[in-house]
Amino acid sequence: MQITKKTENKCFAGSQAVYQHNSIVTRCEMAFSVYIPQIAWTHKRPAIIYLSGLTCTHENVTTKAGFQRYAQELGLIIVCPDTSPRGTNFPEEHDSYDFGSGAGFYLNATQKPWSANYRMYDYISKELPDIISHNFPVVTPHFGLMGHSMGGHGALTIGLRNPDIFPSVSAFSPIVAPSQCPWGQKAFTGYLGDDHNEWQRYDATELMKNGCKSPSKILIDQGTSDEFLEEQLKPDLFLKACREKGQDIELRMQEGYDHSYYFISSFIGDHLLFHEDNLAAQ
Amino acid sequence: MQITKKTENKCFAGSQAVYQHNSIVTRCEMAFSVYIPQIAWTHKRPAIIYLSGLTCTHENVTTKAGFQRYAQELGLIIVCPDTSPRGTNFPEEHDSYDFGSGAGFYLNATQKPWSANYRMYDYISKELPDIISHNFPVVTPHFGLMGHSMGGHGALTIGLRNPDIFPSVSAFSPIVAPSQCPWGQKAFTGYLGDDHNEWQRYDATELMKNGCKSPSKILIDQGTSDEFLEEQLKPDLFLKACREKGQDIELRMQEGYDHSYYFISSFIGDHLLFHEDNLAAQ
Repeated sequence: MQITKKTENKCFAGSQAVYQHNSIVTRCEMAFSVYIPQIAWTHKRPAIIYLSGLTCTHENVTTKAGFQRYAQELGLIIVCPDTSPRGTNFPEEHDSYDFGSGAGFYLNATQKPWSANYRMYDYISKELPDIISHNFPVVTPHFGLMGHSMGGHGALTIGLRNPDIFPSVSAFSPIVAPSQCPWGQKAFTGYLGDDHNEWQRYDATELMKNGCKSPSKILIDQGTSDEFLEEQLKPDLFLKACREKGQDIELRMQEGYDHSYYFISSFIGDHLLFHEDNLAAQ
Repeated sequence: MQITKKTENKCFAGSQAVYQHNSIVTRCEMAFSVYIPQIAWTHKRPAIIYLSGLTCTHENVTTKAGFQRYAQELGLIIVCPDTSPRGTNFPEEHDSYDFGSGAGFYLNATQKPWSANYRMYDYISKELPDIISHNFPVVTPHFGLMGHSMGGHGALTIGLRNPDIFPSVSAFSPIVAPSQCPWGQKAFTGYLGDDHNEWQRYDATELMKNGCKSPSKILIDQGTSDEFLEEQLKPDLFLKACREKGQDIELRMQEGYDHSYYFISSFIGDHLLFHEDNLAAQ
C-alpha cells in the first residue's frame, strides 16, 4: 500500500502531516492526517484514530481541535481520516450535508450506487489500521478510537464490533441511536435500504442491547447546549442500554457547551489521556 | 458605540464570542472576536489584542491558534480584529491577496480611494481599545499587542508609536521592514504613495532607528523553515536596529517551523505568558 505525503508542518516539536493513498476498499483516493510526536521517532507509541462528523474532512479537527499539544505531551500518534469516499459523482451525492459525500456514516453500503465505494466501515476497521501499522511508529496493533457526532457514532459502532483492534473508545456528542433519529434514518435508508437487521449492525444502542461490549470504560462528553441533543443525539438511549448490559460508561453532560470544535478543544485532552491509560493497560 | 454579539461559544469554561459594530474610523461594519476567561466575570483582567496576517479575518486565529486554553489558565481577555475594512468595493480591492481587502497593513491610507476607509492604524490604536474598555471587564487602559506576519508588522509599529497604550509587544514571523520587502513596498505605494517620510511612520525598523521604544522587552518568534523569511520578513534588520538603540528584544529562531498556524499554536502560550508578566508589571 503506497501512501504519499502531501503536506507536513512542524507543530509542538512533532510533525503534523497529510497523506493520500488509493484505497482498495473505497476504490478512490483517500486522504488522512497524522500527527507524530517527537518521542515516536525513537520509541514506538500508541495511535488514536479520530472520526469526524458531517461535512468534515480530515482537515477540520486537525486545524481546530488543538490536539497536538496533548499528543506531544502524552506521546500519542493521532490519525484523522476523511468522512466519506471522494471523487465519485453519483446522482445527488453532493446535494445535502447529511447524505453522500462528507456523510459516509462509517458503514458498508448495500444499496446501489453507494455500495461500489461507500465502504467506510471496512476502511476504518481494516484498511486504515493496516496502513498505520505499516507506515508509522506505532507500538501495538491496538488503537484508540474516538469521534464527534457522526464520527462518535462511527467510533462506538466500530469499537463495539472490533474490541480486539479498538479496546479503547470515546466520543464527543455522538449519534448513539441512528435508527431512532432523522440523520440516521435518512442515511440508513439510503445506504442500507429497508433491512432493519442491517441497520442494527450500525447502531451503537442496538449493538449494546445485542451483546457487544467494549473491554474498557466508554467515555462520552456531551454539551447541554448542543442544538442537536434532543432530536439527533439522545445519549440517554445508549446510557440505558449500557447500564442494562453492565457496560462501564461515563457520560459527562458538560454544562453550556455546544456542538462545535470549541467544545471538542476544551475536553480533547481528557480523551487523549483516557485512551493513553486504556492502551497502556492492554 | 453600539456593538452587537453575533455568535458565542463556551470554550475552556470561558466565552468565545464574535461582535460587529459600525466603525467611526473605517466607516464600515467591522467584526472582532473576544475570548473572556471565566475569572473575568468576577475580576477585571488584562486584555491582549492579536493582529492577523494577509488574507485573514478574526476567524482564522480564533479557530486555529488554540489560545483559549492558555487565556483561561492565565485569566487573559483576547481580542482579535479583522485585517481591513469590509464592504467597500473599490476598483481592484479584492483582486490580490496582498493589497486591498484582507491586507490593510494597519496604516492610515493617504491615497484615494483607500483613504476614505483604510484607516486600520487609527482603528487599532484608538477605536478598538475604546470599545474594549467600555464593553468588557478589562483591568486597565493598557493592552498587550501581538500579531502574525502583516499583523506582526502592525503590532510592532502600533506598539512602538503608542507605548503608553501598548506597553507589551510581541510578534510571530513579523514583516519588520516593509519599506525593504515586496509586500510592504506594494502596500505602501498603493496606500501612501511615494512619500517615504510617510512610509517611515509604518516601518518598525525605521521607527526604532528614529527613536521609538517599547518599555518592555519585545518578543519575536520566527520559524527557520518559513518560506517568506528571506524575501519578506528579514527579522535581522529589526534586531540590528534594536541593538543599536538599546531596545531589549528576544528574537527566537525556531528550528524547522514554518509560517502556519501550526507554528503559532506551538508558541502562543509563551506569548500570552509574556504579555501577562509585562502587564502585571505596569
